[in-house]
Amino acid sequence: MDPPFRLTAVLFEGFELLDVFGPLEVFGALSDQFSVSMAGPTAGPVTSAQGPRALADWAHAGAPSPDIVLVPGGRGTRGLVSDPDFLDWLKGWAGSAGIVTSVCTGSGLLAAAGLLDGYRATSNKRAFGWAREQGPATTWVPQARWVQDRDRWTSSGVSAGIDMALALVSHLLGRDAAVTVADRIETEWHEDPDWDPFAAKNGLV
Amino acid sequence: MDPPFRLTAVLFEGFELLDVFGPLEVFGALSDQFSVSMAGPTAGPVTSAQGPRALADWAHAGAPSPDIVLVPGGRGTRGLVSDPDFLDWLKGWAGSAGIVTSVCTGSGLLAAAGLLDGYRATSNKRAFGWAREQGPATTWVPQARWVQDRDRWTSSGVSAGIDMALALVSHLLGRDAAVTVADRIETEWHEDPDWDPFAAKNGLV
Repeated sequence: MDPPFRLTAVLFEGFELLDVFGPLEVFGALSDQFSVSMAGPTAGPVTSAQGPRALADWAHAGAPSPDIVLVPGGRGTRGLVSDPDFLDWLKGWAGSAGIVTSVCTGSGLLAAAGLLDGYRATSNKRAFGWAREQGPATTWVPQARWVQDRDRWTSSGVSAGIDMALALVSHLLGRDAAVTVADRIETEWHEDPDWDPFAAKNGLV
Repeated sequence: MDPPFRLTAVLFEGFELLDVFGPLEVFGALSDQFSVSMAGPTAGPVTSAQGPRALADWAHAGAPSPDIVLVPGGRGTRGLVSDPDFLDWLKGWAGSAGIVTSVCTGSGLLAAAGLLDGYRATSNKRAFGWAREQGPATTWVPQARWVQDRDRWTSSGVSAGIDMALALVSHLLGRDAAVTVADRIETEWHEDPDWDPFAAKNGLV
């Protein structure tokens, strides 16, 4: 039997490694519940901002619409917010998923595609002003580990994606499932979405 | 100018995603200090325990000897501890590196290759007995986020690799460098190597 939730991460040149593989570690630990795949500019190698390369299972254009979308940040986001072809594809493809998530500056991509219009959202604390510029119709929350607003889940920078992924597991499957995964991967889960010491460190509160 | 430290992660079929990409996020954030690459069974795709594939830059046999070796865990370790060709290669290749590190059950691979003989070490807390069996000449430390003994650094399960990587950055470049990276990736660094709530949760203390 196929797992009930199909999750696809969006890769692009210059994606942030941990934004993708932190959450995929969490969801991949529950392989009876989640199937995980990755969509890139083409099916094949995609180079991260840190150098290591991952292999996309699908090209963006050919990727089946999943139940859950994960959009990472990374320096590659800076060009993509001005790429109408990418944003058109993201708006249609991610917009038809049941749950849309982002990590770090990935929320800037969602915002630029119009996918956060009318939503509350957060982003990386070092590039918060940049994210804000991408979404004038979004209510940006400066102090939050992650923000859930209906079917949109946006997290703060990099490592925050792991905490958000565990919260989403808790939301879908119950808190015990999230705690079990956190213990298995020896993660101290920040279960409170308001926990965010990095907002103050970056002068946002 | 090339970065002073060349770090290579060892990939194999069934490697644990976050064991590799947590530390590579940390080292990759300091690209003026660390170059990062990955060595697999062949140069090309390697499938993780969670499903997503990464691209090895080198085949194990052809990988240049780096300054720092990173050996992850994951279910693929279980077969490799009985693979004499792999263990012979690992012993020679990693043994000539200045610093040898492992995450999670990767310490079982180091132990099986004889690379932890006479050293103190730790491992994942759920598979601690298995790791211990691989290294009868190793002093296993059941409660530790990570253990440094001279040029060997071994961490506890999965997420612990990030804390160990930050500690290694601190060791090589100073504490400020580690704190800067932790803040940048919005990680709450567990700076105390004795912090380990997962030992008690798994009945090891």
